[in-house]
Amino acid sequence: MRYSQLFAKTLRRPPREAKIASHQLLIKGGLIDRALSSGIYSFLPLGWRVMKKIEKVIREEMNAIGGQELFLPSLHPRELWEETGRWQNYVPPLLKLKDQHGHGFCLAPTHEEVIADLCRRFVHSYRDLPSAVYQIQNKFRNETRATGGLLRVREFIMKDLYSFHQDEKDLDKYYQKVYQAYEKIFERCGLKAEAVEAFSGSIGGSFNHEFMLFSSSGEDKVAVCDKCDYKANLEKGEFARRDINSKDKLLPLKDVYQPKEIDTIEQMAKFFKLPKERMLKDVLYKGSDGRYHVVIIRGDLAVNETKLAAALGIDSVSSGTEVDLKKLGTERGSVPVKGLKGAHFIGDLSLKTVKNFVGGYKRASKELEWENTNLNRDFKVGKLIDVAEVYDGAVCARCGAKLKLKSAIELGHVFKLGTKYSKQMGAKYLDKKGKKQLVWMGCYGIGLGRLMAAIVEAYHDKKGIVWPESVAPFQAHLLAIGKTKKTASQADDVYQKLKDVGVDVLYDDRQDVSAGVKFADADLLGVPIRLVVSEKTGKKVEWKKRDNQKTEFLNLQEAIRRLGKNL
Amino acid sequence: MRYSQLFAKTLRRPPREAKIASHQLLIKGGLIDRALSSGIYSFLPLGWRVMKKIEKVIREEMNAIGGQELFLPSLHPRELWEETGRWQNYVPPLLKLKDQHGHGFCLAPTHEEVIADLCRRFVHSYRDLPSAVYQIQNKFRNETRATGGLLRVREFIMKDLYSFHQDEKDLDKYYQKVYQAYEKIFERCGLKAEAVEAFSGSIGGSFNHEFMLFSSSGEDKVAVCDKCDYKANLEKGEFARRDINSKDKLLPLKDVYQPKEIDTIEQMAKFFKLPKERMLKDVLYKGSDGRYHVVIIRGDLAVNETKLAAALGIDSVSSGTEVDLKKLGTERGSVPVKGLKGAHFIGDLSLKTVKNFVGGYKRASKELEWENTNLNRDFKVGKLIDVAEVYDGAVCARCGAKLKLKSAIELGHVFKLGTKYSKQMGAKYLDKKGKKQLVWMGCYGIGLGRLMAAIVEAYHDKKGIVWPESVAPFQAHLLAIGKTKKTASQADDVYQKLKDVGVDVLYDDRQDVSAGVKFADADLLGVPIRLVVSEKTGKKVEWKKRDNQKTEFLNLQEAIRRLGKNL
Repeated sequence: MRYSQLFAKTLRRPPREAKIASHQLLIKGGLIDRALSSGIYSFLPLGWRVMKKIEKVIREEMNAIGGQELFLPSLHPRELWEETGRWQNYVPPLLKLKDQHGHGFCLAPTHEEVIADLCRRFVHSYRDLPSAVYQIQNKFRNETRATGGLLRVREFIMKDLYSFHQDEKDLDKYYQKVYQAYEKIFERCGLKAEAVEAFSGSIGGSFNHEFMLFSSSGEDKVAVCDKCDYKANLEKGEFARRDINSKDKLLPLKDVYQPKEIDTIEQMAKFFKLPKERMLKDVLYKGSDGRYHVVIIRGDLAVNETKLAAALGIDSVSSGTEVDLKKLGTERGSVPVKGLKGAHFIGDLSLKTVKNFVGGYKRASKELEWENTNLNRDFKVGKLIDVAEVYDGAVCARCGAKLKLKSAIELGHVFKLGTKYSKQMGAKYLDKKGKKQLVWMGCYGIGLGRLMAAIVEAYHDKKGIVWPESVAPFQAHLLAIGKTKKTASQADDVYQKLKDVGVDVLYDDRQDVSAGVKFADADLLGVPIRLVVSEKTGKKVEWKKRDNQKTEFLNLQEAIRRLGKNL
Repeated sequence: MRYSQLFAKTLRRPPREAKIASHQLLIKGGLIDRALSSGIYSFLPLGWRVMKKIEKVIREEMNAIGGQELFLPSLHPRELWEETGRWQNYVPPLLKLKDQHGHGFCLAPTHEEVIADLCRRFVHSYRDLPSAVYQIQNKFRNETRATGGLLRVREFIMKDLYSFHQDEKDLDKYYQKVYQAYEKIFERCGLKAEAVEAFSGSIGGSFNHEFMLFSSSGEDKVAVCDKCDYKANLEKGEFARRDINSKDKLLPLKDVYQPKEIDTIEQMAKFFKLPKERMLKDVLYKGSDGRYHVVIIRGDLAVNETKLAAALGIDSVSSGTEVDLKKLGTERGSVPVKGLKGAHFIGDLSLKTVKNFVGGYKRASKELEWENTNLNRDFKVGKLIDVAEVYDGAVCARCGAKLKLKSAIELGHVFKLGTKYSKQMGAKYLDKKGKKQLVWMGCYGIGLGRLMAAIVEAYHDKKGIVWPESVAPFQAHLLAIGKTKKTASQADDVYQKLKDVGVDVLYDDRQDVSAGVKFADADLLGVPIRLVVSEKTGKKVEWKKRDNQKTEFLNLQEAIRRLGKNL
């Protein structure tokens, strides 16, 4: 490819909204366009070459584990998503539209409904199982906030694999295969991805992992134990609740004065001159089951909504609004630990670590609060569960060491769906005895654009991208340096020879730009091997790796040999 | 691939709604699923293999003419389409939706707006021209009526190429290249596509062709002259207006009695005992320019709306409604040839062929009509233009022979956009003299799913599909026939050897179905070469081509040699 003919060349500067390296470099290099609308990107020819290489790696590994490629639509009829309740409950809300006849459709963010529908019509007998299908296809997400370039977008290309099995054992076996295939994919792309325990939520199942790349640009947080190697995301991260004073004697419950201005846990702790962990926090949530749930938790901890929904066995929860509070006869800051009709009370594990809490029964109008509030004596909860969000410095539940919170990019997700969708949609097969059984399902995703951005986050320096060979847009970048006709014709000749032997080469043949610009563009674009033809190189070519400062003068034959070809 | 492991196997019968061969066979063979919703299809593993082969052919030919592959989004912001006026005027109406913030988007049926936006930001100088980019990407169309399986759909994968040029001459040169590349693509897919002159419409430009496959299942009509080889679609087809009585003397205009029940041209002609061509027809249209246009045409001819819009230089026209007629002070059946304030009058070329028309000034309430109505004496029109739809048996405008109307499937479209979009969106470049010039553009599309269906329409028999080698889902289909363990193990062995040497083979290893079912499925799926291992074949394999009845017994080595591989 001659650079002069390339559609969409490098830019002098990245757009102002680009804050992280991958966003800046991909746009500056002309690999992607600036956002057409928030979180919606065009892949330009250079970027699309990288995407195609990533696609090839993924396709090879999916085929290697028996995945059969297919292609499903993006427009899904409303009725299908109503069967699983996700027409209403999907988070973030589905992008919905109507056709000319007024029929409702959504733009698919994922394909469980369509695939389970295929499964219930095409899988009849145990003889049809196991099988696995995948697609590489555009997905849509109605994100409120799309930032970080290709890391969080509203339209994106995803590889989604779905597998079907007779039983849990067979699903678990295949899950391990996919897990290993994912490790290979990320490794082939040059990334060291860490498998992290992830949220299973209402879907259930014992295996569920996210593949994370630790990166300061990552928008996800992972709790990591340096000692025992425990890793989990915020929505799953378990930690031991530090004991505060659980051996203390119970003191008598009493009303104490609390000025009505006191609103937050911080203010309370300061006023009562006690640490935050001695305060009792009550939070109202509305569940996707339509019920109100009051979570009671130690004052220093925060509730993780995903953990909460998972613990409740429902799809999602959202914070109670002023309207909800009013409906229950209370108001913000005054959710009591007991006596709220129509609400379901649950407690975090941390309640066991404290005796004589302050809080739980604020009456703002009377400027009163409880002191020495104690679980089981003064209030009761349905059960004590793990709904607190892990934090930097929390105690590892496995080994007692300290957990660290690290930023990470989620590269992939392997998910044991179990029988959730086959149950909801009636996907059954006849077993060997002729009995109908639910099909066991797994789903496994990788976002291709995010993977490309993650590679750039991991492989760049001040000058630009430093592509790993496996996904580089070209093998070699040839520069013609110098204004003489002789140099140009020599460079043309080298270009032709490289093409003839099958080297995938980008040739900077521009006559109207300086050597400095060409060198800077080569560093920015990050093709692994830079070749220079100039007056200085004579009959040789200058060879330089992007990730190394050393330059060498080589015969063309030797350069071609190093590029894995023969002259 | 073992057939037993294939997701989505053949069906016993196609769905009732499938009327044409490709729709029936693709579904029955398990290549595509029945419609998820009208005009929305899933490609199952076998069908997706065919699509991937078609994609490869197209990609190779696009790369060969310097096309650079990229990938553009499907969600387009409203503002972009408002720049060209197509947010409102696109036909059929765009599929529109809103995001969480209430911003309007459409689902792209085509990408001129996005590509012209890229062009105005990335193409600066004559040095950046020419260039051509393409994508293979999902498109969306809000079709009212989606029928004929993959022939007319609402979501479809399309290859769309866009080219950018300094001037019309360079565009024309590239247009010819694409034209030839298209001929190669269809030829490689086994199809004899005919390039047909097509509607240029408001976009203008002298070159504009559709590539048509003549087929009884086609939903398009093409006028074909057997003598001079003229071919054009209905929206473009020109024909000579047969002279009726243009040499007659003008008779005096007069009012004649016409019963108020008379409503159609047929009724008029019968009542006046004259041929339809002596009747004068007046039709009201509303243009996308917001104006009313009255078309006056000979009674035996029909107006083609696309031709009319093109002749008027506007995007589209639609039939005047009762409301429109009322607004102009008239009613259905009584559009007069003169005196309608606010309407623009134009006439078809056919008006010149008749003297002394009947019609043009019906007053239903008085049961009166005009007789001996003559152009220029009794009424005037802005201009006489070609707006009549060509019909079977019309006279060829080029050679005077008779035109035939044939059914056809549109496989591709090459379109000279000229400077329409670059003007509307400001895509300019600096020429060698430093002067700003509009970029000349072309666009060129092929629908991949429709192409697959067209191949099936052209290549099938009573038993099923007969794939051309180039796009067959597999090279060979191996059947294990017989219930003995020995046969099964021999067949397994042949399968392994075929795979080892790189033959792309589907292996029907099913133990639970009869030989008859396997043979029928092989005929249905239409893989070019059928290989059988049975008790009868001994150490040989039975070789049969799908398009031939002859069977042969071959050594495996010879079979492999014929499949282009070496043992």
